[in-house]
Amino acid sequence: MDQFSTEKLTISINRLLRRLYELAEIGAHKDGGTTRISLTDDDKRGRDLVVQWMEDLGLEVRIDRIGNVFGIRKGTTDEKPVVIGSHVDTVVRAGIYDGSLGVLAGLEVVEVLNENNHVTTRPVVVAFFTNEEGVRFQPDMMGSLVFAGGYPLQDALNSRATDDGTTLKENLERIGYYGSAPAGQFPIEVFIEFHVEQGPVLDAEGITIGVVKGAQGISWTEYRITGVQNHAGTTPMAYRKDAGYVAAEIIKYTRDLVMEMGENQVSTVGMVDLCPNLINVIAEHANIVVDLRNTDGKSLREAEQKVSGFAEKIARKEGVRIVKKALVRLDPVPFDEEIVQKLHTKAKSMGFSVKKMWSGAGHDAQLIARVFPAAMIFIPSKDGISHNAKEYSSPEDIEKGANLLLQVVLELARQA
Amino acid sequence: MDQFSTEKLTISINRLLRRLYELAEIGAHKDGGTTRISLTDDDKRGRDLVVQWMEDLGLEVRIDRIGNVFGIRKGTTDEKPVVIGSHVDTVVRAGIYDGSLGVLAGLEVVEVLNENNHVTTRPVVVAFFTNEEGVRFQPDMMGSLVFAGGYPLQDALNSRATDDGTTLKENLERIGYYGSAPAGQFPIEVFIEFHVEQGPVLDAEGITIGVVKGAQGISWTEYRITGVQNHAGTTPMAYRKDAGYVAAEIIKYTRDLVMEMGENQVSTVGMVDLCPNLINVIAEHANIVVDLRNTDGKSLREAEQKVSGFAEKIARKEGVRIVKKALVRLDPVPFDEEIVQKLHTKAKSMGFSVKKMWSGAGHDAQLIARVFPAAMIFIPSKDGISHNAKEYSSPEDIEKGANLLLQVVLELARQA
Repeated sequence: MDQFSTEKLTISINRLLRRLYELAEIGAHKDGGTTRISLTDDDKRGRDLVVQWMEDLGLEVRIDRIGNVFGIRKGTTDEKPVVIGSHVDTVVRAGIYDGSLGVLAGLEVVEVLNENNHVTTRPVVVAFFTNEEGVRFQPDMMGSLVFAGGYPLQDALNSRATDDGTTLKENLERIGYYGSAPAGQFPIEVFIEFHVEQGPVLDAEGITIGVVKGAQGISWTEYRITGVQNHAGTTPMAYRKDAGYVAAEIIKYTRDLVMEMGENQVSTVGMVDLCPNLINVIAEHANIVVDLRNTDGKSLREAEQKVSGFAEKIARKEGVRIVKKALVRLDPVPFDEEIVQKLHTKAKSMGFSVKKMWSGAGHDAQLIARVFPAAMIFIPSKDGISHNAKEYSSPEDIEKGANLLLQVVLELARQA
Repeated sequence: MDQFSTEKLTISINRLLRRLYELAEIGAHKDGGTTRISLTDDDKRGRDLVVQWMEDLGLEVRIDRIGNVFGIRKGTTDEKPVVIGSHVDTVVRAGIYDGSLGVLAGLEVVEVLNENNHVTTRPVVVAFFTNEEGVRFQPDMMGSLVFAGGYPLQDALNSRATDDGTTLKENLERIGYYGSAPAGQFPIEVFIEFHVEQGPVLDAEGITIGVVKGAQGISWTEYRITGVQNHAGTTPMAYRKDAGYVAAEIIKYTRDLVMEMGENQVSTVGMVDLCPNLINVIAEHANIVVDLRNTDGKSLREAEQKVSGFAEKIARKEGVRIVKKALVRLDPVPFDEEIVQKLHTKAKSMGFSVKKMWSGAGHDAQLIARVFPAAMIFIPSKDGISHNAKEYSSPEDIEKGANLLLQVVLELARQA
């Protein structure tokens, strides 16, 4: 099979969608959405189905100590493998694409190789990682985090479910996924994750392929503001120490700052709790968490400091106390530039509209990228909706994304 | 008794405080505070004690259809009476001063008249009104509101308790205060309410007597803001329709507006509810209530309109919807200028530090003022604390305020 004929290989969208819908039936709610929270019985049934498909495709299945699953299609050499992966656990009432698409597109790539008797020098591996969503066990993206050496295996195994307090290890054993392979210790040539964007950009701009340059850094800072509770009618403005007002000032400042900083800096204050939270009582307490994200770590820290500085200033002016707490600090993770460029060039050569972009959500690929070259392919999410039964990506976009994945894997795994 | 000797009459602070503490024992909590919610059994016991005191002082007790109680000390003529009054019901875990002070200071004035055999041409009446606090039945200030013709008696009697759903009339009958006198129909020469400030101004400024010029107008407007729920990481700023951010802008605008308008305009946003109220989700819904108060009705309406105009503007800019609802609209109530001036002059002549001020809280006097000349005397509340077991006014201030009340009543009731 020469290079010309390799370029004519294409995935079967019907076969891929059939697997997507079949997996989505496990944990499906009658009134919409699918729930397969990591390490529950439904997650086990989902995992079992994917493992069955792996075996049907002739893959050698390896399960590691944290329950990550690798389906290995051997190459002609012992060179490092090209790995396609994501996760098959879900949030509550999820759509059918998040995570599962990347894993099942990997199986589809393998099936295309198989049916064309395409032999590669590098192994091609399809992987899914344990507990990406972090619903029942924290931290999230746990399987890929442990794989990348970012979290001790023993700590992960000892982590306890937020519902019934059982350990992760007990749950792995119960569902039969406490594997024998060491977690990590598995060199990877390139890791590629194919995923729905989970944001509105590609859909709004009418672009089919997003080549992901990396994952944003994330900073969560809690501000606990304490003023003085007082009567809304009898307290002149000059006597007020209004925690709610100070919270509003910080929220507005953060928005203004971010608009001034430009497109790679975003911020959200989605949680505001006032106490006593009554119409005619000046709030004594206000708790907010400022969520800042940036693709540039230095800018992110500058934004953090500016918000913090403003908060101190306005607190002093109003006479309230602020206790600040760093809840999350994650540096941005750039993906491998060479792979990113390869994906971009390939997408263009295939005639797809394409843009390089950053990921705003967290993905397994950003943990793998700490230790091995990694990159991601995004396709549009209708209206940016995700983590919701309404999550939707069109068959046309899925087909294009999966074909891009196929072509890049063919190139990276090298025809024997 | 000539004018010279009249000015030497003084109240007994010990007798007044003894009655205050005795009344406060009814409904007292072991760990602090007193609860006599209107028309409960504890309210009945409090009322019974005050009525007993009225009878002991030789007052003729009249109870009207809404349960307002009047203790009448006859004058030598049928001229309209001078009425001293307030309320004896409380909020939950109240202090001992709010309401009770005005009623018991009235009894103390009567006792001074009695022990000095002081005969007046006008009757002197000590009154307490039903359900000032509005804890179990709405609206609050109900007894004085009905007395002033501001609310139909039948509607008030039919109003139902928020806890057990019984009617106000059933409760009045149960505790023995469904009186036979018509509610209202009782001409008053002057109504004077002696009350703790419930705000910080007198305490902070070191002034003993506040002569109240009137009650602020109150405007409550609810803003229900609906944006679009989205992911904090994957949604670029330009795509956001953030209900929480719009709420913060309105809160800040309101504060800035009020500071610009100056001292008679105050505003509070004490209640903010976001939905889903999660750190990393852009808020779809934000509900706030803007509480505006001003002593000038025209300025108050202007402030209302400016906040509303800004809310529309910022909503349009962000692309969110706002549904606005007027919850409360109360015009300012100015007190009788002649009485206000008389109180001010008298306080000065007695050597007390004094200032004219507006009331930020609601009081029975502002309802009576709709139909008869009325005014109020304030004394300092320590740190402005009220509706709280920590409410405190000093014996020295109470004595001065009660002596001012005595002297003005002596003058208005005219020696026979």
